[in-house]
Amino acid sequence: MTARCGAIERLKLDDAWAWLDACPDVADSEPVALGQARGRVLAAPLPFPGDLPDRDLALDDGYAVRAQDTQGASPYNPLFLSLVPKEAALAAGNASACHAGEALPPGADAVLPLEAGEAAATSLELCAEVASGTGIGRRGQTGRGGDIALAAGQCLAAAQIALAASLGVARLTLRRRPTVALRIAGAKPPAAEALAAALAALIVRDGGLPRAGPGRALAEAGADDLVLLVGRSGWGEDDAAATDIAAAGGRLDHHGLALTPGGSAGLGWLGSTPLLLLPGEPLAALVTYELLAGRLLRRLAGRPSAWPGPVRRLTLTRKIASPIGLSEFVPVLCQGETAAPLPLAPPGGLVSLARADGFLIVPAEREGYPPGAAVDVVGRPCDSLAQDGS
Amino acid sequence: MTARCGAIERLKLDDAWAWLDACPDVADSEPVALGQARGRVLAAPLPFPGDLPDRDLALDDGYAVRAQDTQGASPYNPLFLSLVPKEAALAAGNASACHAGEALPPGADAVLPLEAGEAAATSLELCAEVASGTGIGRRGQTGRGGDIALAAGQCLAAAQIALAASLGVARLTLRRRPTVALRIAGAKPPAAEALAAALAALIVRDGGLPRAGPGRALAEAGADDLVLLVGRSGWGEDDAAATDIAAAGGRLDHHGLALTPGGSAGLGWLGSTPLLLLPGEPLAALVTYELLAGRLLRRLAGRPSAWPGPVRRLTLTRKIASPIGLSEFVPVLCQGETAAPLPLAPPGGLVSLARADGFLIVPAEREGYPPGAAVDVVGRPCDSLAQDGS
Repeated sequence: MTARCGAIERLKLDDAWAWLDACPDVADSEPVALGQARGRVLAAPLPFPGDLPDRDLALDDGYAVRAQDTQGASPYNPLFLSLVPKEAALAAGNASACHAGEALPPGADAVLPLEAGEAAATSLELCAEVASGTGIGRRGQTGRGGDIALAAGQCLAAAQIALAASLGVARLTLRRRPTVALRIAGAKPPAAEALAAALAALIVRDGGLPRAGPGRALAEAGADDLVLLVGRSGWGEDDAAATDIAAAGGRLDHHGLALTPGGSAGLGWLGSTPLLLLPGEPLAALVTYELLAGRLLRRLAGRPSAWPGPVRRLTLTRKIASPIGLSEFVPVLCQGETAAPLPLAPPGGLVSLARADGFLIVPAEREGYPPGAAVDVVGRPCDSLAQDGS
Repeated sequence: MTARCGAIERLKLDDAWAWLDACPDVADSEPVALGQARGRVLAAPLPFPGDLPDRDLALDDGYAVRAQDTQGASPYNPLFLSLVPKEAALAAGNASACHAGEALPPGADAVLPLEAGEAAATSLELCAEVASGTGIGRRGQTGRGGDIALAAGQCLAAAQIALAASLGVARLTLRRRPTVALRIAGAKPPAAEALAAALAALIVRDGGLPRAGPGRALAEAGADDLVLLVGRSGWGEDDAAATDIAAAGGRLDHHGLALTPGGSAGLGWLGSTPLLLLPGEPLAALVTYELLAGRLLRRLAGRPSAWPGPVRRLTLTRKIASPIGLSEFVPVLCQGETAAPLPLAPPGGLVSLARADGFLIVPAEREGYPPGAAVDVVGRPCDSLAQDGS
């Protein structure tokens, strides 16, 4: 395929996003044990199985009391209550030991913390007063049975897993993880392995299940939920990707994006499976993964398709010059409220990407930004880590 | 151990942090193949092995030209150059095909993009002009041999791995992952497994290697880099943790923190290994992990000990009342520039934690904050996910 003056009609980034956003959903769900649920997405809301708490209960270890009996107690003015075994109802002037999570005896309306009392055989010395309701959880105050505890689409991290366990849930109905056929063409080991490892890490971050398949025929990748074909994407003599796609029975709806880096990316199909063609040059591969593949994959995995993490409005320290007609990915270094653009031309671009802590996109219709411009910066690009702290 | 009025001397959170920050480092390093380096930390700086790029080269596929020969070319005013094979030096009026990454022939000072030219057998029709330097990378412009490409302490995600591969590096010298002995006492399955899974996810997030060891004697955990003992941490009759630690030859420097939730946490040693005693109540276990264990573990793993992710100054929507003398962990829901505090009393606290997208700490010396107060909110608590997008 020979390039001709103006022969490549480049798809605008917004139109590429519209194409990605129109790809059909992957809506299957499956039961998963709680211990394996980390990073997965709830397919259906998780309701409270009953009222939470299911009765008035002690929130702390201590002593069930009637609050009015404690009025005036302090280290300088200790008061005494009769310490009685746990009984059907707590009479005035009495106290009984209780543990966190235990039901309160009727009559009790507060829990005196363990350290605010000193127990003898049949009496309790108080060195603090407590107000009615102190240390007590009321039945249903957190949720009524049937209320939604975790919404469908919730991504499950440590806190959500601990919550589900506390509700007595052992298995959850989760979205199936979309499988991603990842094929690298044209790169030699160890660069090919490293690029595959880097992209696989991003696929995992976005909720997908990477399936490297150098031994499989490309046509078989149509059984996966998404195909990423990386390398040989251009229009030179050794750029066989478009031919390979056609030979496997697939097609490209678009080949060539109005984007830099990553202009040789393509969007197409292998059967009914969306296929993204990404450039093999590592920088362009990572950038197009972030701008195209990640967006689609997150949605297929049941997550919001937007870039994860907050967008910050920062002030540019330096001018950005950008070709009109192309959307440009620009990595930046953020410091306080400012963003300094980093050069992205290869081979240095990969250095910039590795040092960046944010990026912005210059829209196709702009020639760049003057210094001092307010720009929207999104988080660290190509960060495959759980909040990495670097 | 019976609690007495005022008998528990609670350690302030700042002093607990000072104790954690004084624990000795784990400075071992090990060689690791690039494909296994994700999430690990560089033990030594990675230098550029030579100048990058190592010569003047083409950044794009296209045609090596002398820029002055292209002046005035446009779709409406095409110019013609002689298309010659790649040769020792490019003469005026000539152009030769080049691929991205190839050295430029001497004399050439720009690369005309593939699509801006139409090649015939011996001539090239140009429909655009290029400036000198366009499409060219100069030798050493990104880095000189020996310059630092990635600094020691850098945490390796997709972009850093791709960069190392592009520098021809197959193995890296990385910090050893600190091992964390994780022991849950007092909880029954499946809650114990779920709590272990939740804590293990946070340990992995912070760069540690969790080692659950219900079958091992506690004393053996001293061979690990950090011991987390979860549960039975209080001062009630069934709270055996302090006794167990002493029986295993360990000691607690401090037992009881001026912190809520998590007041029964403790700090100590098993031999020369730091040991953190965390409450078994899931909410308090997760909060004390975040406030104490995560801070120490991140440093042991070679990462910054501070909470990962940005701190945002937000406006409180509602009053927070907090007991004076205790640091209080408060989860919040962030919306725009505001933060709404969520209730944290168990059992509802776990629901709040699972729904929160940030948290703040009310210092011990404050009784809380009025509505409208400016507070520093840090990111989603107990989020064990790679940027989870939820």
